[in-house]
Amino acid sequence: MLFQILDYLGVAVFAVTGGIVASRKQLDFIAFLFFATLTGIGGGTLRDLLLGVPVFWVVNETYVLVCLIVSVFVWFFAHWLERLSKPLRWADAVGVAAYSVMGAAKALSVGDTILVAILMGVSTATFGGILRDTIAGEPPSIVKPEIYVSAAFAGASCFVLLVQFDIPNALAAGFAALLALGLRGGAIIYGWKLPGYGSNAGRQD
Amino acid sequence: MLFQILDYLGVAVFAVTGGIVASRKQLDFIAFLFFATLTGIGGGTLRDLLLGVPVFWVVNETYVLVCLIVSVFVWFFAHWLERLSKPLRWADAVGVAAYSVMGAAKALSVGDTILVAILMGVSTATFGGILRDTIAGEPPSIVKPEIYVSAAFAGASCFVLLVQFDIPNALAAGFAALLALGLRGGAIIYGWKLPGYGSNAGRQD
Amino acid sequence: MLFQILDYLGVAVFAVTGGIVASRKQLDFIAFLFFATLTGIGGGTLRDLLLGVPVFWVVNETYVLVCLIVSVFVWFFAHWLERLSKPLRWADAVGVAAYSVMGAAKALSVGDTILVAILMGVSTATFGGILRDTIAGEPPSIVKPEIYVSAAFAGASCFVLLVQFDIPNALAAGFAALLALGLRGGAIIYGWKLPGYGSNAGRQD
Repeated sequence: MLFQILDYLGVAVFAVTGGIVASRKQLDFIAFLFFATLTGIGGGTLRDLLLGVPVFWVVNETYVLVCLIVSVFVWFFAHWLERLSKPLRWADAVGVAAYSVMGAAKALSVGDTILVAILMGVSTATFGGILRDTIAGEPPSIVKPEIYVSAAFAGASCFVLLVQFDIPNALAAGFAALLALGLRGGAIIYGWKLPGYGSNAGRQD
Repeated sequence: MLFQILDYLGVAVFAVTGGIVASRKQLDFIAFLFFATLTGIGGGTLRDLLLGVPVFWVVNETYVLVCLIVSVFVWFFAHWLERLSKPLRWADAVGVAAYSVMGAAKALSVGDTILVAILMGVSTATFGGILRDTIAGEPPSIVKPEIYVSAAFAGASCFVLLVQFDIPNALAAGFAALLALGLRGGAIIYGWKLPGYGSNAGRQD
Repeated sequence: MLFQILDYLGVAVFAVTGGIVASRKQLDFIAFLFFATLTGIGGGTLRDLLLGVPVFWVVNETYVLVCLIVSVFVWFFAHWLERLSKPLRWADAVGVAAYSVMGAAKALSVGDTILVAILMGVSTATFGGILRDTIAGEPPSIVKPEIYVSAAFAGASCFVLLVQFDIPNALAAGFAALLALGLRGGAIIYGWKLPGYGSNAGRQD
């Protein structure tokens, strides 16, 4: 149940970020719809292709409808959203948190190992945003020094770990998603970052 | 039959656009071949991966041969093509029209729903060009304000709708492809565009 | 056996290039890991998706471990690597050589034709680097005038051809990889290039 909510939530908030990018580029409604859908379902599509299972929105078109509804909403209310503080980055943060857990959970559910599940969580949490930014011609968030991939990594690892210790799935998912969101949120508000390459011990020059 | 023609046509004209981009970057023949092939088969490859069917050019290598022939042609005649008015954009328009119908048709043929078929038409019609522009480092056509995604959307939707009303496939395909081409052509010649986000009713500032 | 070595080698050296790019962008360790893994397994992932076989690192997670080890290594020693002459381009060259042969070999091993095998070699040898450069926001090596795609093409074609003449697989693989590396190496050291489009016979202006 919490999984289902996280799943729709991840798709919906990523769709919101796609819509915001389209609104900033002043695209028309169909392009809007396209950007929102692409960003919403991009990460999960990659996940399913890599796992070799049927693509989720081809099987269940409710996800496409979610993106459609979100597009209509953002089309009418993007100017309100823009009054919030950093709406794009916060929606993206919620999406990363939800998708990192869902990616890892789906990989575990088809019998993959811990390492593959973590990698699947990280890559599918970040893929929608990479797609959105690359096509829109913006620098992807992933190459900024702030915590981003690390938040997805923390979410996916935490979920996988808790499940290993027989914590119920829903509890593990909720906790892991909150951890990822907390880390990414800290990066948005306070600029949290891990030490970057230049500052590591072995670096001389 | 018309399907087969549309299919080869879509691959061939997208390959032409890939070749033109390579010629403008003054790449060598092998890179030429690579760009033409990538753009020609990119959209259909995505379509088949998403639908979970074998990739079309792995099954039938005629498509690769078509790209090879187109590459040789463009290599020798790109300087003639360039004398035409906007050859890249027109070839791209024909490709978008052909692929939008083929994408939707293939999705319907493997039993997918209307919504999925439309989305498949739109995404596969635009994917080859996105790939071409991203790798070449050009801004993708998709983020320009002109009608582009909308043309693919009109083509795919029109085909799916006509088929629902029992119009014969070939007729529906021909009509839908012409509609998409007409819309995109209007955008190229007259700069047709749908109202962009900034001008919608809810926008205040 | 040589295949196995080429396979791990291709993944490892592409992972090195991903790590070097991350180090130049001063990213944190997790982003480092992500970039290295993405570049290391990107090409092979595309190959397996196109061939419709299970993705290699989902089946055998040793490949992910290889990327993890490489990341740790590059994290501590990137400043040494940078003292070498053009470490990124040389590692990339070894990766292209190894992957062009592996891509073609895997396509042949699942029964595909010569043409598909060559295309698979070329596309999987270049895909990891395209992904790395696109996400990092660098211009992809593939659109530079130097020999690059051509080296991958030579490696894949040479392997496929030698195998047709019943040369043992390992010998064919070794020879083809060296050919690809030699061509790309010549491009790095001496700036070797094939004639570009502008200089071909048919070009008037």
